[in-house]
Amino acid sequence: VIPDLRKDPTRGRWVLVRPRTDGIPLTDQCPFCPGNEALTPPEIVAYRKDGSPPDTPGWSVRVIPEADPYFRIERPLVREGVGLYDRLSPRGATELILESPAHEDTAARLGEARWEEVLWMYGERIRDLKRDVNIRDLLITRRHRAPGARISHPYSRLTAIPIIFDEVRRKLRECREYYEYKRRCVYCDIIRQEIAAEERLIRQTERFVVLSPYAPQSPSEVWIVPRQHHCAFEEGLSGEAASELAALLAGYFRTLAGRLGDPYFEMTLYTAPNLAAKVLPGEWSTIADDYHWHIEVVPEFHPRARMGGIYVNETPPEEAARQLREAWRSS
Amino acid sequence: VIPDLRKDPTRGRWVLVRPRTDGIPLTDQCPFCPGNEALTPPEIVAYRKDGSPPDTPGWSVRVIPEADPYFRIERPLVREGVGLYDRLSPRGATELILESPAHEDTAARLGEARWEEVLWMYGERIRDLKRDVNIRDLLITRRHRAPGARISHPYSRLTAIPIIFDEVRRKLRECREYYEYKRRCVYCDIIRQEIAAEERLIRQTERFVVLSPYAPQSPSEVWIVPRQHHCAFEEGLSGEAASELAALLAGYFRTLAGRLGDPYFEMTLYTAPNLAAKVLPGEWSTIADDYHWHIEVVPEFHPRARMGGIYVNETPPEEAARQLREAWRSS
Repeated sequence: VIPDLRKDPTRGRWVLVRPRTDGIPLTDQCPFCPGNEALTPPEIVAYRKDGSPPDTPGWSVRVIPEADPYFRIERPLVREGVGLYDRLSPRGATELILESPAHEDTAARLGEARWEEVLWMYGERIRDLKRDVNIRDLLITRRHRAPGARISHPYSRLTAIPIIFDEVRRKLRECREYYEYKRRCVYCDIIRQEIAAEERLIRQTERFVVLSPYAPQSPSEVWIVPRQHHCAFEEGLSGEAASELAALLAGYFRTLAGRLGDPYFEMTLYTAPNLAAKVLPGEWSTIADDYHWHIEVVPEFHPRARMGGIYVNETPPEEAARQLREAWRSS
Repeated sequence: VIPDLRKDPTRGRWVLVRPRTDGIPLTDQCPFCPGNEALTPPEIVAYRKDGSPPDTPGWSVRVIPEADPYFRIERPLVREGVGLYDRLSPRGATELILESPAHEDTAARLGEARWEEVLWMYGERIRDLKRDVNIRDLLITRRHRAPGARISHPYSRLTAIPIIFDEVRRKLRECREYYEYKRRCVYCDIIRQEIAAEERLIRQTERFVVLSPYAPQSPSEVWIVPRQHHCAFEEGLSGEAASELAALLAGYFRTLAGRLGDPYFEMTLYTAPNLAAKVLPGEWSTIADDYHWHIEVVPEFHPRARMGGIYVNETPPEEAARQLREAWRSS
């Protein structure tokens, strides 16, 4: 079986069909801990203050390719039809961003300074990958206590692919439609309304808002949105904004872990797709104006609570915001 | 908390926000068994060969309102803005179609004659509900061994809502785009190609094909598609087609239960939205030509196997089709 991306023509949704693998055999040693660098593929980049050579200890944040990746950069990009169907080779990149040398660190324990380094690394990797015109979109996801996870060492995952992520395409389309009608970015309008309404606002700083979205798919979903409009995280983040965001992430994750039962969560960083990519649809020419980078955190997601694609949420976001606001204040 | 449908303006996705309820307290007795009709809300309709009165034993298929429904028909339909957001009252209907008086029946044990009655009841309820101009869309879903299910008596669920289901909107949009370009229905083209290619074909009868879709979201997803074009199940099903479809469903579910480990599954019947509804978008005026009713069955769905909205499937559909073809033949 050759892995391929296949499109369901009735839904416009891509599925990666690939052979089942057993994954990398795990030894007793954590492959992501300092001293075990030889257990991972060679590093792509790392932050090292002591000038130590690659693939040795001394790093604070280290980026490696996923050992058994869904998407590989070495592959040629092949687009072809299979009768009426479309297939695409899964060319792209899957990278792991090791957030700390300390095995016991978590999103809550990383602290502001380390989170700031991680955010810089996010930006550096995104900028580098966007130089590849065959990469159209990328997402950074960060899970905590994921069911079935085999490695507990803290890391984020960057996935870069030759198509637009489904979730991103939905957002691009809605943002564009809003912009065409209003000539304003929908996220900018949301920020203004939420600050005025207050009831879903969790925290507000000079450059960011943290809020419970109006129609959250899960009870304690949280969005972190920069107050200044910019479509791309990796271009819109100043030094001051990076430390403010790092402090917000550290505080929010500390609150989740300390006051709210340390639930499973998934964080996703949404940035603009690769505007330098080949074959970007012309209708997305207004992305710089209509799209707005942001972070979503979805804790304790129960996918059972949906029905034909409509999510059912039994905690109003106003209530979720109130709880989180109070927990954060007292943490 | 008043339940309401809220739209996420960044995704165009509706979420039902409603208070948490404990559900109906269960007694030792199955409320869906004959003799216990008083334990359910009054029936909407039932097939009774013996002329027995409503809400008494003697029925073969019985339809009741969900006791604690997500959508209620008694509510007025209210649309309003909340600043830039949209909300809608959850007016609609949630009905349970009890498929058999026998508590121990399953999708696999119902048999062809009973499945045929159930299919007729599906059609009757859909036609009746579509007379309500405030109902825009409806889906029938049928689960087997659903995690967390409290009642094992066999039933299907019909949900009728004042908006278009998310999954359906995706399909309508893709089908329309295909039609605009090709002037053909995408399902009709899929049927023709799959019959010619054979590798994903599971079974073919005079009026239906059963196939593994080209890009399945789950390893053993199956589509059952009528070979003759019609957008609406409840109008496109002749007497002969109903018995053929009943035989296919009975055979497929028997194979799943007998040869393939009796997995959890969810079946969904997709029919056209309510073309008599108010405020149906004008762009959907070609639904009769571009949309094609069909049934999807998704067994053993592991929602973990997705990534930013792209599903990862480790069983190629050609392999899944081969296995199911052989299992069905020998069952």
